[in-house]
Amino acid sequence: MKHPIPDHNPMRGQYGPKATPAPTHFALSMGDDGVATVTLNRPERKNPLTFDSYAELRDWFLTLQKATDVRAVVLTGAGDNFCSGGDVHEIIGPLTKMTMPELLAFTRMTGALVSAMRACPQPIVAAIDGVCAGAGAMMALASDLRLGTPQTNTAFLFTRVGLAGADMGACALLPRMIGQGRASELLFTGRAMTATEGHAWGFFNALHDSAALLPAAHKLAAQLAQGPTFAHGMTKTMLHQEWAMTLDQAIEAEAQAQAICMQTQDFRRAYEAFAARQRPVFEGD
Amino acid sequence: MKHPIPDHNPMRGQYGPKATPAPTHFALSMGDDGVATVTLNRPERKNPLTFDSYAELRDWFLTLQKATDVRAVVLTGAGDNFCSGGDVHEIIGPLTKMTMPELLAFTRMTGALVSAMRACPQPIVAAIDGVCAGAGAMMALASDLRLGTPQTNTAFLFTRVGLAGADMGACALLPRMIGQGRASELLFTGRAMTATEGHAWGFFNALHDSAALLPAAHKLAAQLAQGPTFAHGMTKTMLHQEWAMTLDQAIEAEAQAQAICMQTQDFRRAYEAFAARQRPVFEGD
Amino acid sequence: MKHPIPDHNPMRGQYGPKATPAPTHFALSMGDDGVATVTLNRPERKNPLTFDSYAELRDWFLTLQKATDVRAVVLTGAGDNFCSGGDVHEIIGPLTKMTMPELLAFTRMTGALVSAMRACPQPIVAAIDGVCAGAGAMMALASDLRLGTPQTNTAFLFTRVGLAGADMGACALLPRMIGQGRASELLFTGRAMTATEGHAWGFFNALHDSAALLPAAHKLAAQLAQGPTFAHGMTKTMLHQEWAMTLDQAIEAEAQAQAICMQTQDFRRAYEAFAARQRPVFEGD
Repeated sequence: MKHPIPDHNPMRGQYGPKATPAPTHFALSMGDDGVATVTLNRPERKNPLTFDSYAELRDWFLTLQKATDVRAVVLTGAGDNFCSGGDVHEIIGPLTKMTMPELLAFTRMTGALVSAMRACPQPIVAAIDGVCAGAGAMMALASDLRLGTPQTNTAFLFTRVGLAGADMGACALLPRMIGQGRASELLFTGRAMTATEGHAWGFFNALHDSAALLPAAHKLAAQLAQGPTFAHGMTKTMLHQEWAMTLDQAIEAEAQAQAICMQTQDFRRAYEAFAARQRPVFEGD
Repeated sequence: MKHPIPDHNPMRGQYGPKATPAPTHFALSMGDDGVATVTLNRPERKNPLTFDSYAELRDWFLTLQKATDVRAVVLTGAGDNFCSGGDVHEIIGPLTKMTMPELLAFTRMTGALVSAMRACPQPIVAAIDGVCAGAGAMMALASDLRLGTPQTNTAFLFTRVGLAGADMGACALLPRMIGQGRASELLFTGRAMTATEGHAWGFFNALHDSAALLPAAHKLAAQLAQGPTFAHGMTKTMLHQEWAMTLDQAIEAEAQAQAICMQTQDFRRAYEAFAARQRPVFEGD
Repeated sequence: MKHPIPDHNPMRGQYGPKATPAPTHFALSMGDDGVATVTLNRPERKNPLTFDSYAELRDWFLTLQKATDVRAVVLTGAGDNFCSGGDVHEIIGPLTKMTMPELLAFTRMTGALVSAMRACPQPIVAAIDGVCAGAGAMMALASDLRLGTPQTNTAFLFTRVGLAGADMGACALLPRMIGQGRASELLFTGRAMTATEGHAWGFFNALHDSAALLPAAHKLAAQLAQGPTFAHGMTKTMLHQEWAMTLDQAIEAEAQAQAICMQTQDFRRAYEAFAARQRPVFEGD
């Protein structure tokens, strides 16, 4: 006798206004297309991060691991800026007075936000205008795809407040994104990367005018949400898993990962659509 | 008493029309210059791969590990295209009906083709015109050097058939070739990379007009074949070996690798030629 | 009862004319700004390396690990060239006559120079004009930041003398700096990378006219020397440490590293300066 799958599958969850309380430290909207939009929303301060918003963002991205109603994420800032990073008065001041265990709890919390962004299966499209600094630059870097505007200024400015460029994974992520030499310059000097540099160096996937930025990010996220989302999740998982594997280990890991994807219904749907000269309609299973 | 080297050295082999049967699923020609040219040759279908051609290509690249008469390889496609990837009817259809062990045997076979291309000591120069898609894009990526034309369109389009971008090592190789952000875009969206993008991003080493493409690839391969081929093989081995080493491990590994090369006759030949103000003639030992 | 810190702290050292003998195989000058300038100075031969200069450079960079009076380094060549690499007559000739243990001792010494440059906490700014070849190209690559001129020609020309591109860590460092495909071309062919290519590919952080090169390098080094040097050292350490970590390991490593930096006086100084709307003055502790 088989073990039936229960009506309520404990490995799956729902995210959304009905299932979880609305966040209090950032804005969240859910579209009918499966795209969740996260907006850092203290525009009068250029959307700084606080202890509370770090924690709430980390927790929200963690819930995405079992959220079946979110298929892609847009991450953006209210007004003309993305994020100014950790607030000087609300974060940096208190940090100068903390004990070591408290400091480590803080740096682990900020790192956990990056880990949660990399661990969720949904692709994250960051729409980045204006100021993108410090921990804000790290949230941009931890996203899967990045769209900017000609006005975007991205600064890993930790050195300006007396700290190392080693923050939230920057010394690992940034060299792989723009090359070891350019990353070294940005992390040692803290200087801003212009939008033109960021595009030429592979940090930004594309630049749009400010008015077109958020629509472009939504269009891209919606396109991904209509794709084979189980396979997208595997793509994201494997980009993460293979970070420090040997090439032969990565090839075996992908042989296993892709064999799994070949037993999805979306793979069959794509084949049947191609055979019928139609466009496939993916359902994510 | 010394152990003499036998006339027939079992660690060395001959490849070529005399030594092994001609392939049946791709075309092969051997030049007097030590350059073997592999041509995917079903141009009326844009040179798709089939179960048979995957296996035969894998086996052929494996034989290169002991082939002393092949010193460099040109990989190209017949007609105006490189390779359209796994054939929809001959590959994708059957895959939708396979069991998991059969699927894993397939994905391991395709991965083994990449492994064999990375494991052979000969540098592989890919000459890529027109369509370069799916597994074809992966064969291009697994080559050592890539020449394109303004018409080359390269698409890692696995997502279009409902699969993950994690195929044949793509999530490991592509980020190291063009950067993590650009690779993420290509693998998540499946969109084609234009030739201009591919050149600017470091995927293509150079672009040539279609008529000049294959001659340029042959010229480059012949130049490499005239070089210190034992040392070239060590360069290729170390690029592979050091993929996931720490930097200090890599430095020790290269100290050993280069000390070996310093005991080759080619190193002595180069020194003597320089001392005599002549151009060195390398023999690969 | 506490263990008092002795007046003479054995973990710290002084470098400089007073503390250690002047080098004999390269020129060294110490500025009041904490910037040490290393000049390869056999301009009539384009500043080649010799057995003696390799060893002395390695030893000097090793002393930097405990030198508290050097806060940044400029590395350059006398005249119009950076460095022509290992001298044909003084290095390559003798190498062709060495035993394997002697060869390995040599390749380990050259690798140890790169290791020492990566292990010292001071950022190294290379000012590179004209010829930058072989081991000279590796010293450029092992620096943290690289400034060139339109005339700089950089060649990893090991293959031209019959050797592998695997020298002093080239197969690990170069792909991370300019991408796997471009690095493969330079290492297999030994061809020179033009200054324009080097800038576009992320090898050079900037290009300057020859007359402006050294002043620009000094300005950049002096700016870094005025920064939070303890934190700069941590940035350099973590860029090195995270080379082959998984991303989650890197995030935890940075949580620890940054928590340490948050207990420095420089972090407090930065906060207090920002609160007072002043520019912080860092002291490196």
